[in-house]
Amino acid sequence: MNIFVAGTGITKFGELWDKSFYDLAEEASLGAIKDAGIKVADIDAVFVANMLFGKIDNQDHLGAVVASLLGTQAPAIRIEGACASGGLAIHSAIQSLESGMYKNVLVLGIEKMTDVSSAEIGSYLMGAGSEEERKAGLTFPGLYALIARAHMQKFGTTREHMAAVAVKNHYHASLNDKAQFPYEVTVEKVLKSPVISNPFTLFDASPITDGAAAVVLSSNSKKGAVRITGSAVATDTIDLAKRQSLTELSATKIAARKAYQQAGVTAADIQVAEVHDCFTIAEILAMEDLGFCKKGDGGEFVMSGATKLGCDLPINTSGGLKACGHPVGATGVKQIIEIAHQLTGIATNRQVKNAKRGLAQNVGGTGATVTVHILEK
Amino acid sequence: MNIFVAGTGITKFGELWDKSFYDLAEEASLGAIKDAGIKVADIDAVFVANMLFGKIDNQDHLGAVVASLLGTQAPAIRIEGACASGGLAIHSAIQSLESGMYKNVLVLGIEKMTDVSSAEIGSYLMGAGSEEERKAGLTFPGLYALIARAHMQKFGTTREHMAAVAVKNHYHASLNDKAQFPYEVTVEKVLKSPVISNPFTLFDASPITDGAAAVVLSSNSKKGAVRITGSAVATDTIDLAKRQSLTELSATKIAARKAYQQAGVTAADIQVAEVHDCFTIAEILAMEDLGFCKKGDGGEFVMSGATKLGCDLPINTSGGLKACGHPVGATGVKQIIEIAHQLTGIATNRQVKNAKRGLAQNVGGTGATVTVHILEK
Repeated sequence: MNIFVAGTGITKFGELWDKSFYDLAEEASLGAIKDAGIKVADIDAVFVANMLFGKIDNQDHLGAVVASLLGTQAPAIRIEGACASGGLAIHSAIQSLESGMYKNVLVLGIEKMTDVSSAEIGSYLMGAGSEEERKAGLTFPGLYALIARAHMQKFGTTREHMAAVAVKNHYHASLNDKAQFPYEVTVEKVLKSPVISNPFTLFDASPITDGAAAVVLSSNSKKGAVRITGSAVATDTIDLAKRQSLTELSATKIAARKAYQQAGVTAADIQVAEVHDCFTIAEILAMEDLGFCKKGDGGEFVMSGATKLGCDLPINTSGGLKACGHPVGATGVKQIIEIAHQLTGIATNRQVKNAKRGLAQNVGGTGATVTVHILEK
Repeated sequence: MNIFVAGTGITKFGELWDKSFYDLAEEASLGAIKDAGIKVADIDAVFVANMLFGKIDNQDHLGAVVASLLGTQAPAIRIEGACASGGLAIHSAIQSLESGMYKNVLVLGIEKMTDVSSAEIGSYLMGAGSEEERKAGLTFPGLYALIARAHMQKFGTTREHMAAVAVKNHYHASLNDKAQFPYEVTVEKVLKSPVISNPFTLFDASPITDGAAAVVLSSNSKKGAVRITGSAVATDTIDLAKRQSLTELSATKIAARKAYQQAGVTAADIQVAEVHDCFTIAEILAMEDLGFCKKGDGGEFVMSGATKLGCDLPINTSGGLKACGHPVGATGVKQIIEIAHQLTGIATNRQVKNAKRGLAQNVGGTGATVTVHILEK
């Protein structure tokens, strides 16, 4: 695989009531194109990752919308796979480059979520689950709470283990000026915040966020550019109830195995990772399923401090979905940007020292879609 | 380009109130897989083209939904580009094969439109247009009527020219047992049907349709399989009002030029075509912009009978969107199936004799996205 991250652009993540979808699309896209040192006319195709704008503002056809906004007649395509839309768009963009049909492509991940009520967003997001789950009245906090309860029962994972994820990711976000919640929290604050879906309290959950993230990917090598060496996708039953196991995401394991194989590495070779912590338990599962620690040990692994900035394997240095924010379509692209910045050495006050190889894991639904990417300096 | 249509599957197109989205997805997908002589386990990835199911039934994440339904953990992705979703999914699937990452992929185009009111569907479909067009109260019949009026004024195109498209496509549909309207109509019937948006009457418009169409594409050659030799996409302004010209689709011209170049052919080499006749005027524009006749001559070209089955260049032998039906996400895939069947010689009573090379043109919105594919025996 011969793919380079040629440029990156990202907006502030948060409640951006003074910015439109179009403002965010333009800011991130032009940022990435400028950073790549190219012009709009050099972009051979545009990939737009977005889940909800059709429901929120009745605007679909976002490939053409964004191409039109940028003033290009290049091919443009919208990719959707719920919260994994960003990772899927990166994967498709890579294949378009590997096919030889395109040389430079723009991948824009974007979501504008805070212009409608939380109740509406909560309902819309259930489009990532199944018909049966919607009929049963389940929500994503509820679905992930079932996973958390199963993990607690099987492996003795505790509320304190989960809280440790939130505390670490808020610390990382406090070093990231793009983050939605750039401040620290304590274990006590997490545990005493309102219960949203037992065993979760408010601070176990990622927020509703506006934001956009864009990368220019290129098959032309660029001096100093980070290379993508692994890109894999796997799926699983859309219904959580139909899974073989509630305590692992099978699709993460399959996608990770393929991506490691493509890159010719193992989990032990990864020095920095962004994983899909939509709820604190999801980061614990991710670490286990990616092979960063043994199955069942995720809680202890995060509590040990191993995944905090400055330690062995910093995870979610951006602050993760939890504290950097989770603009659904943008998340998978933001993960690639964070890893690319870490490997390039431009992650400023949250720089991981001498990181040469990183991984990004993006999840749709409760694990029905998972993408894994590996990047190298 | 080394891509083969290894198998095809298609459902009846129409008002299928006794079939669910899932029924249609399964029927078309398993049909294509069986026709390819392979098993679900041989499918390396699934591409799902769909525009509206997120709005109609709150179900997004359709890649995983369909993979789950088929019982595979293969990568799966949803592609959306309004009414060009099918063509875009074919294009992305081709790139995934050309990248060497996959060998056999399933492309499913699907739409279930008749379970909600026409008013809702009309509103949802405006997601293919722009924010400004929605604010102005425009609808697709209205937008294409503007194109028709401009074409009439500039080139002297008449209502009779447009009616000839409907009459021909209904005749073709009368030979297709999958078609929504498998019966003939007369010029008089078209002209005297109720006005829906002046100059259009009811019979100038394609209908609201349920249906699914699937193909297995493969990079392994299969004896007798049709080859895809050109695949190109182009975009244009999402707003019709911002176009340089109302009487051509610039994106069709760009995509056609690229596709002809890839295939090493010209318009004169095409012997059968499926074009995007969402309204009768759209088929007239398509013939001109694809180079089948001179700009402005489209009306006379269809009136001459040249594009009718049995004549020089049969167009929309399936019945087109107009009479075979237009289940949005399925349309671009159905076009590929029709051309593949024509080139294989299995188009039964609507077979074009000795057809060796065909073309499919799929349009999103009023031409903001266009895909062109060329197939050869």
